[in-house]
Amino acid sequence: MKTIGVGILGLGTVGGGVIDIINRHKDKMRDHAGVDLVVTRAADLNTERFAQLGLTSQQATTDAFDVVNDPSVDIVVELIGGIGIARELVHAAIAAGKPVITANKALLASHGAELFEAADAKGVDLRFEASVGGGIPVLEPLTHSLTGNEILSVLGIVNGTTNYMLSRMTEAGLSFDEALVEAQDLGYAEADPSADVDGLDAAAKIAILASLAFNSRVTLADVPAEGIRKLAPTDIEYAREIGYAVKLLAIARKHAHGIDVRVHPTMIPADHQLASVDGVYNAVYLTGDFVGDLMFFGEGAGAGAAASAVVGDLVEAARALQSGNKVIGCTCTDNLPILPLDVLETRYYVRLLLADKAGVIEQVGKVFARYNVSLQSLKQRGCAQKGMAEFIFVTHKTIEADMQSVLADIINLDVVGEVASMLRVEDLD
Amino acid sequence: MKTIGVGILGLGTVGGGVIDIINRHKDKMRDHAGVDLVVTRAADLNTERFAQLGLTSQQATTDAFDVVNDPSVDIVVELIGGIGIARELVHAAIAAGKPVITANKALLASHGAELFEAADAKGVDLRFEASVGGGIPVLEPLTHSLTGNEILSVLGIVNGTTNYMLSRMTEAGLSFDEALVEAQDLGYAEADPSADVDGLDAAAKIAILASLAFNSRVTLADVPAEGIRKLAPTDIEYAREIGYAVKLLAIARKHAHGIDVRVHPTMIPADHQLASVDGVYNAVYLTGDFVGDLMFFGEGAGAGAAASAVVGDLVEAARALQSGNKVIGCTCTDNLPILPLDVLETRYYVRLLLADKAGVIEQVGKVFARYNVSLQSLKQRGCAQKGMAEFIFVTHKTIEADMQSVLADIINLDVVGEVASMLRVEDLD
Repeated sequence: MKTIGVGILGLGTVGGGVIDIINRHKDKMRDHAGVDLVVTRAADLNTERFAQLGLTSQQATTDAFDVVNDPSVDIVVELIGGIGIARELVHAAIAAGKPVITANKALLASHGAELFEAADAKGVDLRFEASVGGGIPVLEPLTHSLTGNEILSVLGIVNGTTNYMLSRMTEAGLSFDEALVEAQDLGYAEADPSADVDGLDAAAKIAILASLAFNSRVTLADVPAEGIRKLAPTDIEYAREIGYAVKLLAIARKHAHGIDVRVHPTMIPADHQLASVDGVYNAVYLTGDFVGDLMFFGEGAGAGAAASAVVGDLVEAARALQSGNKVIGCTCTDNLPILPLDVLETRYYVRLLLADKAGVIEQVGKVFARYNVSLQSLKQRGCAQKGMAEFIFVTHKTIEADMQSVLADIINLDVVGEVASMLRVEDLD
Repeated sequence: MKTIGVGILGLGTVGGGVIDIINRHKDKMRDHAGVDLVVTRAADLNTERFAQLGLTSQQATTDAFDVVNDPSVDIVVELIGGIGIARELVHAAIAAGKPVITANKALLASHGAELFEAADAKGVDLRFEASVGGGIPVLEPLTHSLTGNEILSVLGIVNGTTNYMLSRMTEAGLSFDEALVEAQDLGYAEADPSADVDGLDAAAKIAILASLAFNSRVTLADVPAEGIRKLAPTDIEYAREIGYAVKLLAIARKHAHGIDVRVHPTMIPADHQLASVDGVYNAVYLTGDFVGDLMFFGEGAGAGAAASAVVGDLVEAARALQSGNKVIGCTCTDNLPILPLDVLETRYYVRLLLADKAGVIEQVGKVFARYNVSLQSLKQRGCAQKGMAEFIFVTHKTIEADMQSVLADIINLDVVGEVASMLRVEDLD
């Protein structure tokens, strides 16, 4: 059995995890999976990592292109991230005919089309299981076991940071700021948390999932994303009272006229499988026309989980390489249109601060009626602010554009102090 | 693109589902997965199925060997079931160099070794995703995405019939008999329900899962199986009171000295992900040394779900066939010993009917002490039977052999009316 040389770009926690797996399970992978992986070259700017990971000076380099160009490297693992140098390196590897494994969701969600085109042209494997859902195998099943289905929808809790924060806001009544500090203390959130809390990380992931699920090309720019900054513990509490949990849900649905894709805090039924996915766990909930409902659940982050996904891809690429098997690439060729958020039809939860006097409900109600938005329920709540009362409105199914018109008009009413929050309600039935 | 001829053995609901998928998604699979599947031949003893499924007299036959031997058949789908003629047919297909897709858990769990040996010798694909968990992709991830892990345990709710019955016994307090009648009325249980309710179906499935997870050979005969016939709604209710749910759990764990594998009703923590898997749904919960905990959830039965799994395998086999890719077969070569149930260490719940008089607890307690089985809790309950009292004993972790000794001795005490039930308690931590 010929050894397969692995070159690693970026020796952060995931890169370290990949080396750890290969060190620990090299024999097992040779005996069970039939591939003998050897890390022949690895690059990082932080030279302290080399000794920490037991890399010799022959193996280690600070120039990632050394790795790509090294003849001892058969497969390139890109773990640098971002869409700058990583993009150049992936292109260089493909051009050199070397399979690429990457966890780079931003790169795939922004430049997937050009990368897959290049890989297809060269007949080179490009794999990216680790880019979505950490260690959870979901891209592999989507493109293999589930090919007999038309996938109808993909719902994901795909950002562990925000899911942890929402769990803490739910169970301990923490504010957004308190939950963020706690997540940062535990290493679940970065110093600059915006990619997570503003929904951009989840948007990149649902773009990748939707592309594979619907065999079309969905990019990060196609995904309207709203994060959890504006969410108050009050909203989570009210949601619970009416039987809902609040999750930062990444949603992709195939409709007759195109793809509905978006990320926003969402009220989902408390007894739905996704509602019990708490803490840093991730889950992807798929519906296919034959298979019905499926859920894949697991650790969405962490060095071990992501490294597991990278090595799973490495083994597949190595198997194909050494058996001379042809690569069956990504086929996102359907060019389905992306539906604008405006045409979305769902239910809405709106929390308003209104002047505490007679006739306010009538005035607000008139605005809802003006755009044919029909109310399912209306509840008054106490309010700390003097002279104001807090009201919760929940609508029947309505069109997003109409709801936005309602909100735009309502804020101009004298009796309205604030549109404190607006959440979309998905009954998932 | 060359068409790939599919031959189907057995036109029950799953066979019908496979034809339905191919009819509906033929173009989609050609465009997206790159394979053009055509059902060229199909066999069933019930000739009425031919017209129902739109098969011509050229396609249809009552002799399954006609299908295997037909030169227009490139891949054979075995959906007859059982270990009689199905075994011969699978061997014949392999001998003819034709890939086989099967949903036959009994055949794989009993004769897997000989079939995989034959398939490996011929370099022929043998796939069986539909044999476990219906449409849930779990065998594919185990043998591909997760190859970088040492799998430590596999826990499955893999029998939809019993899970439905337990759900109804839990939520509506039905007895075993009532739940069975209801399941039969709904088509979830067969007229002879023993394969399901006695745990044999689940045992075959965990044998297959354990073989792939641990790269060893686990057969149906290796799996001690206990069903749910003796379970009373009382037990489920008591379990709930102390924070547990009762599930028919298929368990496989890798220990230093071998594999612990078994099927029995099990008390699991009510807040564990598996506890919320209700009704006919199935789930497989895996733990790997790098990936951590994963759960795969979905429809465990039903024509559409099983057909989805069969077609997923068909597409993979067809891709390999037309690209001339080499088959990477099953590697269950580790020959790990199977641990006897006797050495199992877990907690136990025991419900005893004892004479309602002073000193009984002391007498019973002495027997527990005799075998060093230490009690975690002890509760008296009311009892309908005159002069008797019902007691619930929950032990700390102890050895199965010791627990069995306790039970054997206890039943001989004059004060003991009945060992009404014994359940194993798994804390899954």
